[in-house]
Amino acid sequence: MAVLVTGGLGYIGSHTVVELLNDGFEVVIVDDLSNSERFILKNIEEITGKKPFFYPFDLRRRELLTQVFDAHKIEGCLNFAASKAVGESQLKPVDYYENNLFTLINVLQEFKERGISNFIFSSSCTVYGQAETMPIDENTPLKLPESVYGKTKQMGEEILTDFAKAYNRRISLLRYFNPIGAHPSGKLGELPIGVPNNLIPYVTQTAAGIREKLNIWGDDYDTEDGTAVRDYIYVVDLAKAHVSALKKLMQSNEETVIDIFNLGTGKGSSVLEVVKAFETANDVKVPYQICERREGDITVAYANADKAEKELHWKSETTLEESLRTVWKWQMYLDAQTV
Amino acid sequence: MAVLVTGGLGYIGSHTVVELLNDGFEVVIVDDLSNSERFILKNIEEITGKKPFFYPFDLRRRELLTQVFDAHKIEGCLNFAASKAVGESQLKPVDYYENNLFTLINVLQEFKERGISNFIFSSSCTVYGQAETMPIDENTPLKLPESVYGKTKQMGEEILTDFAKAYNRRISLLRYFNPIGAHPSGKLGELPIGVPNNLIPYVTQTAAGIREKLNIWGDDYDTEDGTAVRDYIYVVDLAKAHVSALKKLMQSNEETVIDIFNLGTGKGSSVLEVVKAFETANDVKVPYQICERREGDITVAYANADKAEKELHWKSETTLEESLRTVWKWQMYLDAQTV
Repeated sequence: MAVLVTGGLGYIGSHTVVELLNDGFEVVIVDDLSNSERFILKNIEEITGKKPFFYPFDLRRRELLTQVFDAHKIEGCLNFAASKAVGESQLKPVDYYENNLFTLINVLQEFKERGISNFIFSSSCTVYGQAETMPIDENTPLKLPESVYGKTKQMGEEILTDFAKAYNRRISLLRYFNPIGAHPSGKLGELPIGVPNNLIPYVTQTAAGIREKLNIWGDDYDTEDGTAVRDYIYVVDLAKAHVSALKKLMQSNEETVIDIFNLGTGKGSSVLEVVKAFETANDVKVPYQICERREGDITVAYANADKAEKELHWKSETTLEESLRTVWKWQMYLDAQTV
Repeated sequence: MAVLVTGGLGYIGSHTVVELLNDGFEVVIVDDLSNSERFILKNIEEITGKKPFFYPFDLRRRELLTQVFDAHKIEGCLNFAASKAVGESQLKPVDYYENNLFTLINVLQEFKERGISNFIFSSSCTVYGQAETMPIDENTPLKLPESVYGKTKQMGEEILTDFAKAYNRRISLLRYFNPIGAHPSGKLGELPIGVPNNLIPYVTQTAAGIREKLNIWGDDYDTEDGTAVRDYIYVVDLAKAHVSALKKLMQSNEETVIDIFNLGTGKGSSVLEVVKAFETANDVKVPYQICERREGDITVAYANADKAEKELHWKSETTLEESLRTVWKWQMYLDAQTV
């Protein structure tokens, strides 16, 4: 059984490819390397002892995608290919809409024409905006996201839902909370391309001396210590949820399935808690300074992940400290590569 | 000054091309003829005595679009190219998302890269859903549309708004109510491709004996005569609003403009009123039967068009009967062509 993994050399994609290979799936990766590097493929092979198929091209090139579907008996897709920087999405909206929608729709055209089902979509808790009540379960009302990035995710959910209904297919919308961490081998993780958008790479680079200080955006939020609270989910746990979600679709007796799952730990951590956990886990110091709030940042978001536990038999198993140890190991690996 | 008119041989597009040519604009049409015919171009030339440039290709072919922008000094765009049948959009969602989003985004990429402003987008009152109060003005809250067609319109509005904000451009979102009628010359109108989706072509074809009976979908709505109420706007009036909206953008001193206008008459008419007006205007009979309500149809929608009157110095000028006379003239023209 071959599954297509778009963006399979990216951060979450690469970890999921490892779990799929370990589970016996044949994996076909399409990734244009716009936000990854070839050595990730080599490392996936070292970790798993298996070789995924790999096609380096931009998914907007429909004719190349058609060739991939001709060459392999694809029975499902995990769709990680997307531009994902919230701030950048505001500055380059047309590129974000193009990248995130064209690539999705092109894959769906192949699915539609070939009668393929089982599509897993990388969505985000950003579709909930600042929810009124915590924790956030799947019935929490959606809000029109403020960022272009968030809108492409919400549009993707709409497009997939309409696809599933019209053609009787099985899809799963996975709403990630905040993925962090790296592979325990230290050979896969979030690649530091440009100034990091997310907290953890920033923390790591500061600890490593690449950045002078960590900027903490606001300490006057209505939370215990004043810094914003998020639900940090370990990337390998998250990757395993994808395998469970895919198997659920593949084993379903229903023709049409529209699954929605929040993927988080169920626990919120403040920015300062993360910094302290990182310092404790890795016995390093992270100098920081408090800055003004960033526009668009919400106060608090954490998941109710009961539905995933019940229906996917999956839950987050790794502690914040454990996952922050893998991040430091990954940073050491990157440092060794550069030397 | 050349303006690009995508879908310029379609129903509203062709009428707008005539008004643009009459107003002295140089017009560049791109239309793939998927929902039009070549004789429309000939008729536009006969009506205006002018020749627009015409490129017959699918706007998803970005490289051809780039050539058009290389060949002409484009200073604005009116974007009519889109699939528009609500019912069909539910059955073919992936095609609708592809057609309506790829074509829009491809044009925006050219605008972005070449620093072009002045983009007029064909939106629809469907973005309001069943509004709580009548008439509907531009501050009426939007609802997530039920149909895929409607969602592509709402997504288009979002994409354009983000485009205007990020790149400091001028755009105008025109929310049409129900366009009807044909050109007074009888040489342009809505082409009857397949079973009509809209009321007026159905009325006309029934009067012409092509269809046995007009189906009226529900007479138990909470309206005066029980049939659904809409705001029918004459297509030539509508076309003129486009020219006004374009000029407003072009003459603006602001770098960034995000205009939104409801384009309607401000008056609601029931289905039965339209049928009677058609019979009176053309002295023909329209046999009809009452059927069950169609899923997704709303009860009543009509515009408050004050903003367009104030800011575009535009208002609907043609009565329902007058516009229904042009429809019959158009039907006679089509009949004569077929003979």
